[in-house]
Amino acid sequence: MQKPTQATLDKIISLCKRKGFVFQTAEIYGGLNGVYDFGHLGFLLRENIKRAWRNSIENDLGEIYTLEGSLLGTQRMWEASGHIDNFHDPMVDCKNCKKRFRTDDGSIDLNKNCPDCGIKNWTEVRNFNLMFKTELGAVADGTAHAYLRPETAQTIFINFKNMMTTNRAKMPFGVAQIGKSFRNEITPKQFLFRLREFEQMELEWFCSQESAMENFEFWLAKRREFYRSLGLNMDRIRFHAHGKEELAHYSVCCTDIEYEFPFGFKELEGIAHRGTFDLTQHSKFSGKDLAVFDEATKTSHTPVVVETSVGVDRLFLTLLFDAYYEDEMDGETRVVLKFAPHIAPIKLAIFPLTKKLEEPALALFKTIKKTVPNIQFDVTGSIGKRYRRQDEIGTPFCITYDFDTEHDNCVTIRDRDSGKQDRIAITDIMSYLTEHGVINS
Amino acid sequence: MQKPTQATLDKIISLCKRKGFVFQTAEIYGGLNGVYDFGHLGFLLRENIKRAWRNSIENDLGEIYTLEGSLLGTQRMWEASGHIDNFHDPMVDCKNCKKRFRTDDGSIDLNKNCPDCGIKNWTEVRNFNLMFKTELGAVADGTAHAYLRPETAQTIFINFKNMMTTNRAKMPFGVAQIGKSFRNEITPKQFLFRLREFEQMELEWFCSQESAMENFEFWLAKRREFYRSLGLNMDRIRFHAHGKEELAHYSVCCTDIEYEFPFGFKELEGIAHRGTFDLTQHSKFSGKDLAVFDEATKTSHTPVVVETSVGVDRLFLTLLFDAYYEDEMDGETRVVLKFAPHIAPIKLAIFPLTKKLEEPALALFKTIKKTVPNIQFDVTGSIGKRYRRQDEIGTPFCITYDFDTEHDNCVTIRDRDSGKQDRIAITDIMSYLTEHGVINS
Repeated sequence: MQKPTQATLDKIISLCKRKGFVFQTAEIYGGLNGVYDFGHLGFLLRENIKRAWRNSIENDLGEIYTLEGSLLGTQRMWEASGHIDNFHDPMVDCKNCKKRFRTDDGSIDLNKNCPDCGIKNWTEVRNFNLMFKTELGAVADGTAHAYLRPETAQTIFINFKNMMTTNRAKMPFGVAQIGKSFRNEITPKQFLFRLREFEQMELEWFCSQESAMENFEFWLAKRREFYRSLGLNMDRIRFHAHGKEELAHYSVCCTDIEYEFPFGFKELEGIAHRGTFDLTQHSKFSGKDLAVFDEATKTSHTPVVVETSVGVDRLFLTLLFDAYYEDEMDGETRVVLKFAPHIAPIKLAIFPLTKKLEEPALALFKTIKKTVPNIQFDVTGSIGKRYRRQDEIGTPFCITYDFDTEHDNCVTIRDRDSGKQDRIAITDIMSYLTEHGVINS
Repeated sequence: MQKPTQATLDKIISLCKRKGFVFQTAEIYGGLNGVYDFGHLGFLLRENIKRAWRNSIENDLGEIYTLEGSLLGTQRMWEASGHIDNFHDPMVDCKNCKKRFRTDDGSIDLNKNCPDCGIKNWTEVRNFNLMFKTELGAVADGTAHAYLRPETAQTIFINFKNMMTTNRAKMPFGVAQIGKSFRNEITPKQFLFRLREFEQMELEWFCSQESAMENFEFWLAKRREFYRSLGLNMDRIRFHAHGKEELAHYSVCCTDIEYEFPFGFKELEGIAHRGTFDLTQHSKFSGKDLAVFDEATKTSHTPVVVETSVGVDRLFLTLLFDAYYEDEMDGETRVVLKFAPHIAPIKLAIFPLTKKLEEPALALFKTIKKTVPNIQFDVTGSIGKRYRRQDEIGTPFCITYDFDTEHDNCVTIRDRDSGKQDRIAITDIMSYLTEHGVINS
């Protein structure tokens, strides 16, 4: 057997479109660059990613509370966070065709002609703020700006006191948030990797100055566990601890978790010991004291933040790359997504061997669907063809209902990765799925 | 016993803030009008609402597929939908203080002085488009506009063919979406009722012209079931079928589901037979044929859309209003949220009778938490005070671990609504919770 072929970006994009994981936004109108819609399988995969993340942050050190912050925010909060002043990319415009380019990512050479129109007529290099700005309807003079958040973290920091008080939280504790963020990228690229509209999963962990390093190490180890639990090839994962020169001025230490894509090692997640910077800034800019009074020592102190931050879309892309193989099965070439069972969008497919068996097979399908909602029924084409269809979307198991089933109450269940088939009793299907991690995982 | 007191808007707002259901966005910076953040209990309540909705649209008539469409959309798609031309409110500006007002909702009298600055100096009445507009970074001349979607529905219509093809869907079928939408309201009001940033749960149901009325009636009945399943007082719910003069020009029929708030009957949900308007418009504007070829009759036809659309935030507010009571319990006045068990954010609270029993009670708490994650542990104050705390957030049951527990392995479980206490074996807690609808509901 040949070594299985791995994915390229083109193959992933094509699969995503073909099977309904991802569509370009407003595709029928020519699309919107750097923005995507997620179809049924994409939605299910995202749900599984989010559930896995939520489970992964449960811990014995402190409670986790969840926040759902707004996407629209005020000017002043983004001044405090530094995004108004510092969140920008350098860019130039072509004066001829008006196209805009980043100057720091190798997408343009200022000594050469514009790659779009072929004329050389550049503006000066300027800084371009990456936040999307819009105007509120409340006043007529255009002064009521709002910004789409470029990260979820700040909506947690500004609610720190609210979250601590209303949940009667004791430190250390975490505030988690899953939600959309927006960055006005000049040149979105690599499909889901660099987007204008994306979704983050962030945990802001509030702890004392004394315990901060220990807590940072704790989360570093926890996060490694998470990637292992997703079933990823761990030899494609590396941890990159930032050197002093790479750190933001307020950051005490920071480690990136990177995955080896065909286009190189790229950041999936950042884990950062941010010191007291965030709460101090918001205290200063809002005039509200965000320090915490410690009953034991009778002193006030500003908590340290340890942050873990990962993108749903990047992880989505990573899981597709990691699971994608072209190999041979039953003498045919196939595309297969070898998702871990708890990540697979569809858990099981049920096939009647022929149309004649459609009715009892459908009854079985409906019974199982009550317990395992995300399963499919397929009656079209040969069994081999139906296997290929499920392999391509990563369904771990397929059940065939055949003519013997009527007599022996058994079905054939087939494993996606090995192609191995077991004959099992209908009454054992649920325990089989549980044993193999499809249910309750 | 007195008749229990019901909620007012002020009481609900105060409770939401005090217990961490809802915070004003960027509150420490003076807030952002018409935009809110949701704290831990608010997040959990929203999750329960969404889960209940998802369950409620499962049906025997056709499959439901889910879409997660982007929030940013292109100019052209909103031209096709009619939102660029028609989605506006009439407004005037005060030339003196620049404040803006709607003229059609009774918030202003143009014959009088500005309520804000006291001067009378109005502009003409003009139409104000309710979509938030922003600019993409790609071009320099400001022509690359994007809009935040004012409804989730259109992102479903423009993906109709994608969803039908990739899911190999057969009509009738539905495409469901839960997600944020944005409307640049001039005067947001009534707390969560009219927001600038909100979340919708929409189902677009695609069916044939012939079956459309029957399908409309089917969904009307299904939706009534949903409100009953939420445990709402059905005498505060009414169905309002639109008369001919109330219908949008393309709409065949439409029924609103309304709830009786203290400020009157207000729309929660709309159920509409939209004819073929949506797909026809997008076909016309995109130049892409969105008709479906029927193998049986060998003809092409554009499917009819039956829509059901409800706001998460309005339902959130409704559930709070409906569940809120002030009554007497154990000789004390209390605030209680009488949520149905599957809607309650916290399912159970566990109290050690005294600090001395904290360790074994905490062990019990941790065991139960593995199966029922959203439970609380409270050791602070008298048992009565702890009951009041849980009543106020709608926790259906409280368990007290006392000195007898060590010997008889039993605990006291207390019902939120009746105050009735049962002594049950620790081993029976799970079956008790299942029987009372707290688990698996």
